[in-house]
Amino acid sequence: MGEFELIRNYFAAAPCAQGGEGVALGIGDDCALLAVPVGEQLAVSTDTLVAGVHFPDPCDPFLLGQRSLAVAVSDLAAMGATPVAFTLALTLPTVTADWLLAYARGLNQMAQACGVTLVGGDTTRGPLSLTLTVFGRVPAGQALTRGGAQPGDLLCVGGELGNAAGALPLVLGQRIAETAVADSLLAHYWSPRPQIDLGLALRGKARAAMDISDGLLADCGHIAQASAVAIEVERDRLPLSKALVAFLGMPGATDAALSGGDDYVLLFTLPPAGLPALQAEGRPIHVIGRVAAGEGVTLVDRHGQDITPHIRGYQHFRETP
Amino acid sequence: MGEFELIRNYFAAAPCAQGGEGVALGIGDDCALLAVPVGEQLAVSTDTLVAGVHFPDPCDPFLLGQRSLAVAVSDLAAMGATPVAFTLALTLPTVTADWLLAYARGLNQMAQACGVTLVGGDTTRGPLSLTLTVFGRVPAGQALTRGGAQPGDLLCVGGELGNAAGALPLVLGQRIAETAVADSLLAHYWSPRPQIDLGLALRGKARAAMDISDGLLADCGHIAQASAVAIEVERDRLPLSKALVAFLGMPGATDAALSGGDDYVLLFTLPPAGLPALQAEGRPIHVIGRVAAGEGVTLVDRHGQDITPHIRGYQHFRETP
Repeated sequence: MGEFELIRNYFAAAPCAQGGEGVALGIGDDCALLAVPVGEQLAVSTDTLVAGVHFPDPCDPFLLGQRSLAVAVSDLAAMGATPVAFTLALTLPTVTADWLLAYARGLNQMAQACGVTLVGGDTTRGPLSLTLTVFGRVPAGQALTRGGAQPGDLLCVGGELGNAAGALPLVLGQRIAETAVADSLLAHYWSPRPQIDLGLALRGKARAAMDISDGLLADCGHIAQASAVAIEVERDRLPLSKALVAFLGMPGATDAALSGGDDYVLLFTLPPAGLPALQAEGRPIHVIGRVAAGEGVTLVDRHGQDITPHIRGYQHFRETP
Repeated sequence: MGEFELIRNYFAAAPCAQGGEGVALGIGDDCALLAVPVGEQLAVSTDTLVAGVHFPDPCDPFLLGQRSLAVAVSDLAAMGATPVAFTLALTLPTVTADWLLAYARGLNQMAQACGVTLVGGDTTRGPLSLTLTVFGRVPAGQALTRGGAQPGDLLCVGGELGNAAGALPLVLGQRIAETAVADSLLAHYWSPRPQIDLGLALRGKARAAMDISDGLLADCGHIAQASAVAIEVERDRLPLSKALVAFLGMPGATDAALSGGDDYVLLFTLPPAGLPALQAEGRPIHVIGRVAAGEGVTLVDRHGQDITPHIRGYQHFRETP
């Protein structure tokens, strides 16, 4: 048996590959089979992470296991889908038992947290990269898309912004920080928690939703374009963590929140009448702006003054790989 | 707009990304949405191709576009599933318009031939590799698995064996052949035709099925193990193309057919009573052996003599990446 077949057998025996609701046939055949309940649709998303591009190389394989699955499942949360399963295409330059064991531990832990079953994949030799495809189920017609925002909607996010971007100099070893600050920021980078419950709660309530991966302003641009509306972001309402402000100062923290990316919190628009009920449920919702008629994304100060051209990091506004 | 966003937009506008039965929402949101008819299940498979490992680098991007999708869809055919959709995770070291255009042309052509819609993916910078995840639908309980073979079944394949393996020295530029031979073999390597119709015809008839990717003997081993049976392959019944025999001679052609891999024809077991009806339909079916009680794979000559240890290429029997 070759080493890559050993790996396949190893993943097939992993806790996250056993059973699972909605999985009619798991790892080991030409295809997996997913059962989709009557009246529901299957949500599908694919993400690739390349060593040296999307994560430092080398890095802690346990943390990579967590992060690689979390960023993929976040797309299911953004659609209001219930996570069901995923496939893993793992390309490795060499097979190291320690690396695999640690990676699988991180993957298993995140899979358990998200309620997803590993149903298949591929293991190949090559430069380190990972492609995960995730599957969720959502009642037909109830998926949250980017295209439904309407003028008058509130612009909301599901949590603090900028922490992962703030963590980047720590991840890359370019800076150090006091332990409490570093731990807090690094946890956001390595172990983002897909906002699955929030996504489910927003079904039938949010008019548009996505998860923030490219950065707040860039992702607001995606909703504005898909919904053919204008979006106004109020700078002074951005939820910033104490750790981020302590590490970068207020201007740097604001920049990270606006343009940093990798937040994996939900960005969504709500009719104002829908807000109180969600708040009463204790949902983590921060109103950070509003939807208007028109097009494009504008950043305003607390007086409603347009400050878009003056923000730090504006050159990062556009999506880059 | 960054170059990788341009690529995403380019693929979103490609013919193979437009509409498609069973696709409720295509490219452009956090997830695609697939509709699965009542009573059916979704078959899912993921394949990764790495430059320099699974295809020569450089190679013709048009041919790579065809091949990358065909090898993935072949897994749907092997389950008896009707192909519906796929995602493409494309990792590229640099963005070259000519390369992309040619790759997309090949992809489009194979997508049309297979009836699949591109519903999402990811485009990233890194060493050239491709991960395709394919989706098909199959009535619940009717998928063809590897686990149902029974003693007494006929062992069958859906077409000639060894052509793709025979083509490899041509693909790698290590040998040359006369044009007719080279064209025939190279077509099998670069443009395998997933046996979708055969897979559909085998529903409810074949007891076990898979597609041959690792090589006939290795893949017979997978069925034998999954079904807990023994499999006997008769060397002199292997369907070999004239081109392959002309290029490699009979011993080399036999070796390629037994151990070569990359055939992407279906391998399946049938109760003998099921054969005439399928042959009457004109299905491409070659009986090459039989299923017996026991375990493992045996190669026999026309007299039933066990010649397993003597075959050329036996060291390749085991799956290697």
